[in-house]
Amino acid sequence: MPDQTIDITCDLGESFGHYELGRDEEVVPYISSANVGCGFHGGDPTVMRRTVRLAKANGVAIGAHFGFPDLRGFGRRRIQMDSSDLVNDTIYQIGALQAICGAEGAGISHVKPHGALSDMSYIERDVAEAIVEAVCLVDPNLPIYTVWNSEVRRVADEKGVPTVLEVYLDRCVDDDGIETAGYDIATLGGSVDAALHRVVRAVKEKKLATDTGRLINWEADSVCFHGDTKDTPEFARRLGPELAAAGIEVKAPEISPTVQTPHL
Amino acid sequence: MPDQTIDITCDLGESFGHYELGRDEEVVPYISSANVGCGFHGGDPTVMRRTVRLAKANGVAIGAHFGFPDLRGFGRRRIQMDSSDLVNDTIYQIGALQAICGAEGAGISHVKPHGALSDMSYIERDVAEAIVEAVCLVDPNLPIYTVWNSEVRRVADEKGVPTVLEVYLDRCVDDDGIETAGYDIATLGGSVDAALHRVVRAVKEKKLATDTGRLINWEADSVCFHGDTKDTPEFARRLGPELAAAGIEVKAPEISPTVQTPHL
Amino acid sequence: MPDQTIDITCDLGESFGHYELGRDEEVVPYISSANVGCGFHGGDPTVMRRTVRLAKANGVAIGAHFGFPDLRGFGRRRIQMDSSDLVNDTIYQIGALQAICGAEGAGISHVKPHGALSDMSYIERDVAEAIVEAVCLVDPNLPIYTVWNSEVRRVADEKGVPTVLEVYLDRCVDDDGIETAGYDIATLGGSVDAALHRVVRAVKEKKLATDTGRLINWEADSVCFHGDTKDTPEFARRLGPELAAAGIEVKAPEISPTVQTPHL
Amino acid sequence: MPDQTIDITCDLGESFGHYELGRDEEVVPYISSANVGCGFHGGDPTVMRRTVRLAKANGVAIGAHFGFPDLRGFGRRRIQMDSSDLVNDTIYQIGALQAICGAEGAGISHVKPHGALSDMSYIERDVAEAIVEAVCLVDPNLPIYTVWNSEVRRVADEKGVPTVLEVYLDRCVDDDGIETAGYDIATLGGSVDAALHRVVRAVKEKKLATDTGRLINWEADSVCFHGDTKDTPEFARRLGPELAAAGIEVKAPEISPTVQTPHL
Repeated sequence: MPDQTIDITCDLGESFGHYELGRDEEVVPYISSANVGCGFHGGDPTVMRRTVRLAKANGVAIGAHFGFPDLRGFGRRRIQMDSSDLVNDTIYQIGALQAICGAEGAGISHVKPHGALSDMSYIERDVAEAIVEAVCLVDPNLPIYTVWNSEVRRVADEKGVPTVLEVYLDRCVDDDGIETAGYDIATLGGSVDAALHRVVRAVKEKKLATDTGRLINWEADSVCFHGDTKDTPEFARRLGPELAAAGIEVKAPEISPTVQTPHL
Repeated sequence: MPDQTIDITCDLGESFGHYELGRDEEVVPYISSANVGCGFHGGDPTVMRRTVRLAKANGVAIGAHFGFPDLRGFGRRRIQMDSSDLVNDTIYQIGALQAICGAEGAGISHVKPHGALSDMSYIERDVAEAIVEAVCLVDPNLPIYTVWNSEVRRVADEKGVPTVLEVYLDRCVDDDGIETAGYDIATLGGSVDAALHRVVRAVKEKKLATDTGRLINWEADSVCFHGDTKDTPEFARRLGPELAAAGIEVKAPEISPTVQTPHL
Repeated sequence: MPDQTIDITCDLGESFGHYELGRDEEVVPYISSANVGCGFHGGDPTVMRRTVRLAKANGVAIGAHFGFPDLRGFGRRRIQMDSSDLVNDTIYQIGALQAICGAEGAGISHVKPHGALSDMSYIERDVAEAIVEAVCLVDPNLPIYTVWNSEVRRVADEKGVPTVLEVYLDRCVDDDGIETAGYDIATLGGSVDAALHRVVRAVKEKKLATDTGRLINWEADSVCFHGDTKDTPEFARRLGPELAAAGIEVKAPEISPTVQTPHL
Repeated sequence: MPDQTIDITCDLGESFGHYELGRDEEVVPYISSANVGCGFHGGDPTVMRRTVRLAKANGVAIGAHFGFPDLRGFGRRRIQMDSSDLVNDTIYQIGALQAICGAEGAGISHVKPHGALSDMSYIERDVAEAIVEAVCLVDPNLPIYTVWNSEVRRVADEKGVPTVLEVYLDRCVDDDGIETAGYDIATLGGSVDAALHRVVRAVKEKKLATDTGRLINWEADSVCFHGDTKDTPEFARRLGPELAAAGIEVKAPEISPTVQTPHL
């Protein structure tokens, strides 16, 4: 019996129409949860259906990866939206994916904001409140994937909405625990080995190396990696075995995980 | 106790962002069911939420009015879509509205294709099959609003999906029972009185006057009118009383109505 | 011979497909320049063509009113765009309108950023630079409509791109000369008479009343009003005569106006 | 001195935002003209700018590849548009690319309808007329790329608009001279060698092998190939040398080519 369990997650279903993006087929065997695009920043109804089928066939839990209505910017441009629009756009996207899941005999296990919306949910109270309000209106038991030190986590805690706390395999954080943009193997230790070691340590010891090499407290229920870095295939293949070697079993989180806030 | 009941329906929720369309507030007190735009041809998540709230406050049953992804053409331009895209787009739109309804403690009572998609569903077998397949995948008990002599009605009958059969107050049909485009009071008898009389007769006697004045067999569970003709306000106010005077009670259809096919 | 000339401008061509917006037909006889939507925040190619025809028939100069790619938000939501995207989107929109104008034997006399993009161009250096760069790449003689105290005006001055300086008839400014959002007759003096008087004074005496009633220096080559306030029709009808009564002739600016910066 | 000249063309600039499509960098050294997406079916203003720069750097003539407003369907789904919308959408797209070209000191040498719009322009008179009308309104000297036996060619001839006639390296035609969909090496002779031989024969002898192996008359000023078949790189590299070996020089057409209609 493992000492500990951990979720591995990746973004899937970000293709659009004739445009292919990501390595869904290649990555899906190695993950326990998938964040599926809902058609606003990426994905379309047919891509969503195919992705849900793929996830289900691989025993991977499905999450609604909702984002800004900005295909051109891939949801990575901040948009100053009214809170009510943000609430309703979020409900709309989750509901759309729920129905697509239903068509495949599957269901949604979690939700996660994408791109610039995720960045804003870390620090902007009104964005965090809008997201939590939307989740409450759809299903207050749906966990929100986020980081332990985000506004959306604080608001979710206040409202009793569960969260699943993440650590990124391929993104570093600064000494304030804020994610730094883009994939840079140098800041992750200089090698795939080092990056894997860094994230296993975060999971096991709750200590995460920052971009200055300092160790800060961290809390993680899930390890996330991206599908579009040059090291994605190696990360995908090796992450599970490295975690297993450390006595950690990979599986999707149970509904309603209880989490504790670490302190820097 | 009334001799007969009938549904009155109108399209609502077709505004988009800053753009206002229709007379939703004015019309909603007089109808028993509403077809609510789902964001592809009209409507957006915030408009949908407001419309669902309005319908619920007025005791009006809510239907998902799904259409082609074509805001510019208001869903009135035929698009040659793959069947799988059409199935998935339909599921997506219905699911989105279901979640918006859920946020207001409401639910969907029916679905209806919009505009050019509706026109195509009358005569194109593959379009009809795609729509019925989508409904089966979401909820095979959701009735589809259509006309008695449409392909989508035939396919729905074969699959055991319920239909609610419509007659249009403000659209005429030719001698083959095919709807003619646009509002033209002349072909409806030349006056609002005549148009109301024509539709009451269709409901009560199952005989509908065509654009040549001939009477053909018709079957109607629901009377539909549009929100954008010059006579909309008068139609809205007078339709219910005219039906009542003929001994017909206005109410939304029960789930799973059983219908019989009339013959020309 | 008049003591002074002034331009009167209004936004036109903001309808989209089936959605009508604004009072273009009603307003066009009273203005000398029009800002025409280019399809990103409002307008579509057919609306643009119709609007250009309308402007030309009324002897009204045509400007490209370019905005964020956000029909749902009507270009009024700030979007954090890369400078290169902003430059290229601006070129694209201006070029599209130029070709539509060409089809009507007309041409573009000016450009103006719309909505949130305009707000950002007042204060954000990189946005201002992107806009001026785009104009330089299309035609460095095309004047940019803006206010005297904006970043875009400063950058345009540096690059030798002409500007036409605006004062808003139906928007107030605070004591720092920053436009306050929305139409509020109270801050404009409490009546249409007062608002007209305020703007005539700004043009003639170069003194503009702020929302606290203080007078600040202002510089205006053009008076702008919006098409969607309750007082739009009265403003449209009365602005020209009020200016004429003050000895000011209404006409579109000559190309390459030379302007001087006032000081608060 | 060569016996004959021929143009080689390929579609470029079909990426969108974060989505990459095609092998523009790899193909551009081997072609003399490029059809550049204008943002409706593919491409965006920044992709367009990059593509124009790439074409110019390689001495490749630039054409506006305009399509239906359908990114999801990549312009390959037929849309039943009003003629006026089609005219205006075409003008808009050409104008947008003209301005982007202007920003790079380049210009447009031709136009070409894309995807389903091209297919419809082969056989539907009103579509052909709308396209030719749009070109006349922008610049009646801009040649339209099409096939010799298309409606758009007939209308262009009537209106005095030049055309450049194409033969496809990687698409076959049936015995009626109608292009068959999709890349199938078998119908092209079973090998890259055979496909190259087939198209060189069409250029040199004006005889094109159909999918039944019959030879029909053909007329070609330009050889077009697609960027997304498995044999694209080999086609790109070998087409020019094969044509040269047959005494045919590759170069973009002169403006206003005069063409003669062949007969089957």
